[in-house]
Amino acid sequence: MTGVLYQKLAVIGCGLIGSSVIRAARTAGVVGEVSVYDASPAARAKIAELGFADTVADDPVQAVEGADLVIFAAPPLAIGTAAEQVAGALKPGCTVSDVGSVKAAVSEAFAKVVPPTCFAIPGHPIAGSEQSGPEAGFGEMFQGRWCILTPQARTDAAYAEAVERLTDFWLALGSQVEIMDDKHHDLVLAVTSHLPHLIAYNIVGTAADLEEVTRGEVIKYSAGGFRDFTRIAASDPIMWRDVFLANKDAVLEMLGRFTEDLQALSRAIRWGEGDKLQELFTRTRDIRRSIITAGQESAEPNFGRNRKG
Amino acid sequence: MTGVLYQKLAVIGCGLIGSSVIRAARTAGVVGEVSVYDASPAARAKIAELGFADTVADDPVQAVEGADLVIFAAPPLAIGTAAEQVAGALKPGCTVSDVGSVKAAVSEAFAKVVPPTCFAIPGHPIAGSEQSGPEAGFGEMFQGRWCILTPQARTDAAYAEAVERLTDFWLALGSQVEIMDDKHHDLVLAVTSHLPHLIAYNIVGTAADLEEVTRGEVIKYSAGGFRDFTRIAASDPIMWRDVFLANKDAVLEMLGRFTEDLQALSRAIRWGEGDKLQELFTRTRDIRRSIITAGQESAEPNFGRNRKG
Repeated sequence: MTGVLYQKLAVIGCGLIGSSVIRAARTAGVVGEVSVYDASPAARAKIAELGFADTVADDPVQAVEGADLVIFAAPPLAIGTAAEQVAGALKPGCTVSDVGSVKAAVSEAFAKVVPPTCFAIPGHPIAGSEQSGPEAGFGEMFQGRWCILTPQARTDAAYAEAVERLTDFWLALGSQVEIMDDKHHDLVLAVTSHLPHLIAYNIVGTAADLEEVTRGEVIKYSAGGFRDFTRIAASDPIMWRDVFLANKDAVLEMLGRFTEDLQALSRAIRWGEGDKLQELFTRTRDIRRSIITAGQESAEPNFGRNRKG
Repeated sequence: MTGVLYQKLAVIGCGLIGSSVIRAARTAGVVGEVSVYDASPAARAKIAELGFADTVADDPVQAVEGADLVIFAAPPLAIGTAAEQVAGALKPGCTVSDVGSVKAAVSEAFAKVVPPTCFAIPGHPIAGSEQSGPEAGFGEMFQGRWCILTPQARTDAAYAEAVERLTDFWLALGSQVEIMDDKHHDLVLAVTSHLPHLIAYNIVGTAADLEEVTRGEVIKYSAGGFRDFTRIAASDPIMWRDVFLANKDAVLEMLGRFTEDLQALSRAIRWGEGDKLQELFTRTRDIRRSIITAGQESAEPNFGRNRKG
């Protein structure tokens, strides 16, 4: 057992991920008291009913008071506003983090409002499901998953110690931890997560708008590949809206490359260039094999700590 | 038990699907003898070793001799050639079918070479996996899945009876059977299967070609959505090359719509139009709910027979 790392944990925005952090932290025994705030009164009532928090606060300022670790688990664009709102109430020496899918925007927001007596360390556990809401969370969510931390450019020993402690926190929740530059994070996730979501949302939209093929037929024969896209395209609309807006440049860059490649593929089909198709389809198989070899297919716990600049 | 429907089954092209048909037909007890031909000597040796066929023939003509049901389970573009090769050896009164993902092209090929004394009935069980080869097949593959038959424009009673018998065959293998026009099939599958595969192949190719993000990073952080695409993009390269070439018009039509929609989405991101994004992302959730409600998410057996013109 790691023991208690933070006497009081405050979670601001408590849906799928926020509630999973609390459940996992409770199980790992790394936090003492837990207080929670969510902007939705319905979610607050649900959290109180579920009983995984000690306090369900009526405003975020009250929630963060005396907290040693504050985690913002709200949609990316709401994090800046929420951080600004509570900044004055943060306990000196506390660590401020988040779980958002975009890091540069959060890092900038934190840099603006979190006082230097606190330690702002943006974070992103790569985990989730197409479910949302506090009732959908579960304590095993982070087992064997990567959590990326993107620390700020601070060189003081106290900050390094805070990063070390937050790393221990995520390790205790079952994650592997990687340290990364925030802009690089946003580029990597643009291709491994944001672009796949954008494409899935798009194809489901395209299918819904067809006239020649009915929605009933799309649903009935979805087992041929489409169904996998609908799962991804059922993810939280507000969160994903914010992701695309907050990581606009990297998403548009990756989307541009994807579209170019798709046009080349379209041309190869139109001109009957079977060799080109077969070459690509053979090459993409290798990536799948690498994923299986790397053990990233199964979510089996594979504890460890990786560092990178 | 249905009892034996076809005394002798011949399967031409015996990979993932062909071998699954044989295993499922054996389990259901609907065939007597089974003979097999595959163009690959290695596959033939493997099939002989696995022992699920009575005869592994060295040429397709030998395999179809005396067969009451001939199923072509080769890649779409190979079916026409194979059918032409064996046409003269087909037993009068036998049923000729296939399992290809494209139906109009197969229907045309059958119309050209299958003698009118036989019953050509193209078919498509919507089932599979990213595995390939005779060793990857399994007898439960068609349980609860749809099998679409696209009969030719023949009105004689004997043909209707042959369609009825082939329907019983697929029902016995655990499928639900739907009768459909071949061109409509190709349009429906273009959106529910062919376009999803094309897009999955494309994004995996795009990711593999990046310089700023390493392949190692793509693999490591693939849990954010990308991984689901790699599974689809690991499907059999030759089969899928043939699908896109054989269903060119419908695929390019659907791809055109997809690309238009994607450009509109790209524009909405560039101009920060959050409302448009949120509206689409909310709409796509409904389709997922319909799929879950329709029970198309779990592959639970749901026997039945549906007819449509």
